[in-house]
Amino acid sequence: MTASASGRYVAVIGGYEVDDDTLRLAERLGRLLAERSVIVVTGGRSGVSEAVSKGAFEAGGATIGILPGRDRAEANPWLTAAVATGLGETRNALVAMNGEVVVAFDGAYGTLSELAFALLDGKPVVGLGTWDLPDRGPAEIGIVKVHSPEDAAEAVIALLNRT
Amino acid sequence: MTASASGRYVAVIGGYEVDDDTLRLAERLGRLLAERSVIVVTGGRSGVSEAVSKGAFEAGGATIGILPGRDRAEANPWLTAAVATGLGETRNALVAMNGEVVVAFDGAYGTLSELAFALLDGKPVVGLGTWDLPDRGPAEIGIVKVHSPEDAAEAVIALLNRT
Amino acid sequence: MTASASGRYVAVIGGYEVDDDTLRLAERLGRLLAERSVIVVTGGRSGVSEAVSKGAFEAGGATIGILPGRDRAEANPWLTAAVATGLGETRNALVAMNGEVVVAFDGAYGTLSELAFALLDGKPVVGLGTWDLPDRGPAEIGIVKVHSPEDAAEAVIALLNRT
Amino acid sequence: MTASASGRYVAVIGGYEVDDDTLRLAERLGRLLAERSVIVVTGGRSGVSEAVSKGAFEAGGATIGILPGRDRAEANPWLTAAVATGLGETRNALVAMNGEVVVAFDGAYGTLSELAFALLDGKPVVGLGTWDLPDRGPAEIGIVKVHSPEDAAEAVIALLNRT
Repeated sequence: MTASASGRYVAVIGGYEVDDDTLRLAERLGRLLAERSVIVVTGGRSGVSEAVSKGAFEAGGATIGILPGRDRAEANPWLTAAVATGLGETRNALVAMNGEVVVAFDGAYGTLSELAFALLDGKPVVGLGTWDLPDRGPAEIGIVKVHSPEDAAEAVIALLNRT
Repeated sequence: MTASASGRYVAVIGGYEVDDDTLRLAERLGRLLAERSVIVVTGGRSGVSEAVSKGAFEAGGATIGILPGRDRAEANPWLTAAVATGLGETRNALVAMNGEVVVAFDGAYGTLSELAFALLDGKPVVGLGTWDLPDRGPAEIGIVKVHSPEDAAEAVIALLNRT
Repeated sequence: MTASASGRYVAVIGGYEVDDDTLRLAERLGRLLAERSVIVVTGGRSGVSEAVSKGAFEAGGATIGILPGRDRAEANPWLTAAVATGLGETRNALVAMNGEVVVAFDGAYGTLSELAFALLDGKPVVGLGTWDLPDRGPAEIGIVKVHSPEDAAEAVIALLNRT
Repeated sequence: MTASASGRYVAVIGGYEVDDDTLRLAERLGRLLAERSVIVVTGGRSGVSEAVSKGAFEAGGATIGILPGRDRAEANPWLTAAVATGLGETRNALVAMNGEVVVAFDGAYGTLSELAFALLDGKPVVGLGTWDLPDRGPAEIGIVKVHSPEDAAEAVIALLNRT
């Protein structure tokens, strides 16, 4: 177990209800991030959050879930740290806040809110089959689009090295 | 002054830095909403929030600002109620939460986060020159696009009558 | 209706389940504060919050309720502005945050949390039959104890004039 | 590293500015809790939070810090998971929320707010040289007073076994 000061935190956001292919890709992304010593932050529940946490956890990585409710009953079983917030969906802001880089994977309106907070904070975002936003923000910010977990992990490391 | 129980709350979201034309339209929207006895909720600071609050306030309406900071120093002068939250930009979730209908007016990533929370909650959204989102959510939800404050106010009333 | 910039905000905190005598005193306090043009901030629900809001509202005052839930259904009917937070009891911090002076009236653990936040912020607190705290904080901070709504209102005005 | 589902979370709260004796006791408490496989939750910064985290971390335990700010720069170096909230002191509510049992160690008004939230939630509280509250709440709730880290750890385990 390593102290957080030496770790890099990456938030992975995505949908609750996703197909099996997406879950497999998310799990692979989790493993790839853990192998690169990245601490994976998610919303801590089902869908993409669970799959990416499972992949990272099984590879020996650290996985933090930031939960909407007031207790850990809703946490998926692949978290090394589960934090209850009692904020409801407002906690999406905290998920984005805790990644130095944010990876968006598929997702619907919840993911869109996290994407928006990441972009509002000026954080680098990696997108894998997620929202394709029209350009309304500052030109230099944007979403790095990738097409595989391998490319996502590579983009994350490149972006972490830049910050 | 009327008690809140008899009022209808509409959140108006939009950019901080907008051109004079947008400010004029936002002020007109504020007046139109106040004339229809709508209570206007905003983020309480400058830009669209200030203009729409000014329009509503000068027409005798109620204007609630939900502020990011811990005190009211940052509030614009057109609020009948200013609430400090100390939540920073996370308070965007509360702005959307407090409208039965949400009107998005221009705006950048902060507005996008509020739009996302409104859509996540299944709230009707009226858009005036704002984000043109690709369709990724449930089909029946969406943004009613309008092109003038008059059409926005009319759409708001129609949507309030439906809820 | 007056803009918030010209108003003084005072938070009144207290129990949900209180006896009729306490409710009568709280209602009287609300009226006295409204007559002194103070904007009354409460948690927006029943008990002391409702009684003080009723007193202030019926005297023509402004009454802001900061609610724990995500909608206004739980608001008492005496609020000129009801703000939903979705924060649950964590919203107690926001109630204390929005008073320049905090009046504690009776109350149990919820009131204690609000008292603690007020003292943590270095805010003046007026206590009427509330927690009698042992002295553990900085010596110059403390609770001004009073024994009637009249004395509470007088203490509030004296403290507002000092800030 | 173990998944959170199998862990027991205990929040330890206390002052920022405490004397060396208190720090030594807090560090010993952290070690004792980690040796009993308890996951230690704190506010993540200096004082009691840092000392208890150091003790737990050096004994190989898991230590979660729930920070007031928007980034991890303010975290002490003994956390296995640091979570930024951007809530300011309002995050005290989340620290108490994340312990099944709460241990209060010394402390001033911030600790009092956490104590209040723990008692409001009906959580068992162990007190070591902390606030001595007058009895105003339900009779069955209260603070188990202890006089050493050893007694605190023993009380924590007994209370965890009861929940």
